[in-house]
Amino acid sequence: MTDSPVGRLLDQYDTFLFDCDGVIWSGSAVIPQAREAIALLKKAGKDVCFVTNNSTSSRTQYHAKFARMGYTHVQPEDIFGSAFSAAYYLRHHTPLATSGLKVYVVGSQGITDELDAVGLPWKGAAREPAMNDEPAGMADLSQIGDDPEIGAVLMGFDLHINYVKLARAYTYLRTRREVAFYATNTDLQFPAANQTMYPGTGALISVLTTALDREPDAVLGKPSPHMLDVILESRHLDPKRTLMVGDRLDTDIAFGKHGGLGTLLVLSGVTSLDLVDQATGEARPDYIAPSIGHLVDALGQPEDSSASAS
Amino acid sequence: MTDSPVGRLLDQYDTFLFDCDGVIWSGSAVIPQAREAIALLKKAGKDVCFVTNNSTSSRTQYHAKFARMGYTHVQPEDIFGSAFSAAYYLRHHTPLATSGLKVYVVGSQGITDELDAVGLPWKGAAREPAMNDEPAGMADLSQIGDDPEIGAVLMGFDLHINYVKLARAYTYLRTRREVAFYATNTDLQFPAANQTMYPGTGALISVLTTALDREPDAVLGKPSPHMLDVILESRHLDPKRTLMVGDRLDTDIAFGKHGGLGTLLVLSGVTSLDLVDQATGEARPDYIAPSIGHLVDALGQPEDSSASAS
Repeated sequence: MTDSPVGRLLDQYDTFLFDCDGVIWSGSAVIPQAREAIALLKKAGKDVCFVTNNSTSSRTQYHAKFARMGYTHVQPEDIFGSAFSAAYYLRHHTPLATSGLKVYVVGSQGITDELDAVGLPWKGAAREPAMNDEPAGMADLSQIGDDPEIGAVLMGFDLHINYVKLARAYTYLRTRREVAFYATNTDLQFPAANQTMYPGTGALISVLTTALDREPDAVLGKPSPHMLDVILESRHLDPKRTLMVGDRLDTDIAFGKHGGLGTLLVLSGVTSLDLVDQATGEARPDYIAPSIGHLVDALGQPEDSSASAS
Repeated sequence: MTDSPVGRLLDQYDTFLFDCDGVIWSGSAVIPQAREAIALLKKAGKDVCFVTNNSTSSRTQYHAKFARMGYTHVQPEDIFGSAFSAAYYLRHHTPLATSGLKVYVVGSQGITDELDAVGLPWKGAAREPAMNDEPAGMADLSQIGDDPEIGAVLMGFDLHINYVKLARAYTYLRTRREVAFYATNTDLQFPAANQTMYPGTGALISVLTTALDREPDAVLGKPSPHMLDVILESRHLDPKRTLMVGDRLDTDIAFGKHGGLGTLLVLSGVTSLDLVDQATGEARPDYIAPSIGHLVDALGQPEDSSASAS
């Protein structure tokens, strides 16, 4: 096996971290032969995890999606979404666990489910009603003031974003500088089916960063090191024996490089070979493949059975 | 009169442009003696206009507010809000008047009223419904696609902003680079009553500028020169004989300086004397006064009657 690139990957790495969108699926379509590649890695005794900046789903919700997409061997604890990593980080690395203060959430139910799972109280999210219709709307602004129960603002992707949520988050952060400010991720675009893009969490959060002239205290998604800390801590991994597989240079590959992981870029998502050619130094992935499905031919060879021993 | 600072103002300038918030009123409170100062300027034969970046109201709506606040001599055509200047600019300085294409509006009824007044067709604004509730929401995204009827996106302040509006504007601008992109203003904060601030148009628009990596083709409020062009064109003014009076260095004073106007900063709004002391060169106003109400004592002297002759 050590004579082939795939053999070298199997020899070098015990743990394989996969991005989701553009790597194992694209919208509601499975990447061809990606399921088989994952199954073969598991069969070869490798530890396989999934790492996504999408903050709209909890581990439980993702687990259902993995099963629906035919990734039947994936367990909830194998999935690291930015909603989970944000809740884990807030619970274990901030004073929120002991302060009794609440998290104000601009985001989806995936985030509030994960906060519930770690026992952190919260307000906001989809339950925050929008402004009344004009002309009453303008007068409603005066009802948005500080709330001393809030100790942190956590912002993620929010299909139901409205001015009340933005004004509340802004007011808490502006009124008391000690209110912490967290983001699940800072992707500027949100990828949808059929190569379509919409504004992402990073674009939505710029309403707060520009109005406040303040950046988040921590970003809990790729390429932030906090996301990797959460994975390493809860999974007890050796970075040097871990490979990050993704379709984006600025999140996935940068995430792996910053953390001292090996990196494999797949061309089944948003990055073309042209774009890779322009990348230099730290931005260049260690390995490139058309898709993880292409590993199957190599992994599926007869000599595969000797992979973990060679 | 020429021996006093106020006398020199009256000698030097025929036209006085006033910002509104923080200058003639603050929220729903009239600045003390500001009405009297305006009345005395008009009595002295001066041309008096009002210039505001607030895009939520049309000229007609502002006229009602001026009357309600006791500024009874102000006519609709004396009021230049950024909703009016945006509609005027789009009608007279872009191909929209002849292309038959529509303006997609993220903003309030003030903007759509002004577009109606100049005969430009539009879509969007408050009529754009928000996303359905989860879990249907995510699937709704696929209904947001390009619309070939749209020739420009115009964004202003919007209390009823939602993801559908943002995603539509983003999609039009991303899909066709020839779709023009306009902003009524780029103020990062929106001043409300009692010294409170909320996120402003400039903060809301950063969702689009960051996701698209594209700045607006034109900003139609202060300190953009387009706003001044609209005033000068429709009012036939001489910039050298015009004084801009405002409470902000970065919008009002910069607006006046860029346009070759005289500038008077009043301290009745957001700018303190400390902040003025830190300003250098182009950022420094020509004149400073505690408020326009303080002009009354000087303007009200007996020699006032000789002001226009002296």
